[in-house]
Amino acid sequence: MPLISEYLERAIEQLSKLPGTGRKSAQRMAIHLLKQNDQYVQNLANALLDLSTKVSRCSICGSISDSDPCSICTSPKRESKTLCVVEEFNDVYLIERTNEFQGRYHVLGGIISPMDNVGPDQLRIKELLVRVREESIEEVILALNPDAEGEATSYYIHKLLQPYEVAVTRIAYGIPMGTELEYIDEVTLSRAFNSRTAL
Amino acid sequence: MPLISEYLERAIEQLSKLPGTGRKSAQRMAIHLLKQNDQYVQNLANALLDLSTKVSRCSICGSISDSDPCSICTSPKRESKTLCVVEEFNDVYLIERTNEFQGRYHVLGGIISPMDNVGPDQLRIKELLVRVREESIEEVILALNPDAEGEATSYYIHKLLQPYEVAVTRIAYGIPMGTELEYIDEVTLSRAFNSRTAL
Repeated sequence: MPLISEYLERAIEQLSKLPGTGRKSAQRMAIHLLKQNDQYVQNLANALLDLSTKVSRCSICGSISDSDPCSICTSPKRESKTLCVVEEFNDVYLIERTNEFQGRYHVLGGIISPMDNVGPDQLRIKELLVRVREESIEEVILALNPDAEGEATSYYIHKLLQPYEVAVTRIAYGIPMGTELEYIDEVTLSRAFNSRTAL
Repeated sequence: MPLISEYLERAIEQLSKLPGTGRKSAQRMAIHLLKQNDQYVQNLANALLDLSTKVSRCSICGSISDSDPCSICTSPKRESKTLCVVEEFNDVYLIERTNEFQGRYHVLGGIISPMDNVGPDQLRIKELLVRVREESIEEVILALNPDAEGEATSYYIHKLLQPYEVAVTRIAYGIPMGTELEYIDEVTLSRAFNSRTAL
């Protein structure tokens, strides 16, 4: 097939690398962009460039931020004695959307995974211990994924924190809201029983 | 919710304007991009900018092209006596992928649609008549969508071309390959009967 436009091909190729985007969707996107006015395409391109050049990491919590330290670490409105430990910055994003948590974060930058050759030293665990001590943290909430690696990492951090005077908690595992029990796997259901709370 | 990153928000907002991309997918894309190296994000952004600045229209056929006239209009390998009339450049893209058609194209730039206030004068129909005459076209193949507007536009062009010595054909409407008859709507099925061919 002769190339109609090399630029169109290249855009399709780049777009198809986006998550959840196959070649067909990438084609539709590129064709859609060709039909838009230049301003819109330029806004999109500039927004993506800004992502790569203007967003950096907060040197305190390890999350992403437009400034260092980030707006959460510097906010006087946040409780300074509670730290929520998460795997990556996108977890911060998800938790912030709930408006539930008022403390601060600590981003590990990954999870302990012998399969992927990721050990504790590659994660920001040492930094966590320093913060717990220097910021006189009273509670560390572990909010890692409920899988084998998340469990192992939670366990590891829990053990490391035992010498400190700090409460270590974990977000609840249980039945997601709006789901019928019928559709819940057995492990989740048995977890939900073990973690039952008084009404 | 406090903004984690204004740049992240802006990228999500722009990405969510892509077709087939809701806010959740846009979020996933932006977070994915944040985790990639800068080079990849820059390649993507540049590919999009090129789309808006370097792709133009061919002054002969009206399709998109990196040069004017386009590579199809100037190719000596294409039959010069057959024109395929399509609604937009993306149809050229689709047809080229079949490797079936060896002639040249004429892009109308739209379809006659009284509902959307699009009349024949806003389309490249006059240009089509000029080409049929000046390029001594022998066959015009209408490849418009099989809906009311596509039918009406085909009919209109067919009438306009009657004074010319040119065969006017239309691509076949029928059962798509790999589909079971059971799932075909009645209009398509009756079309398929009317357009039956000898084995």
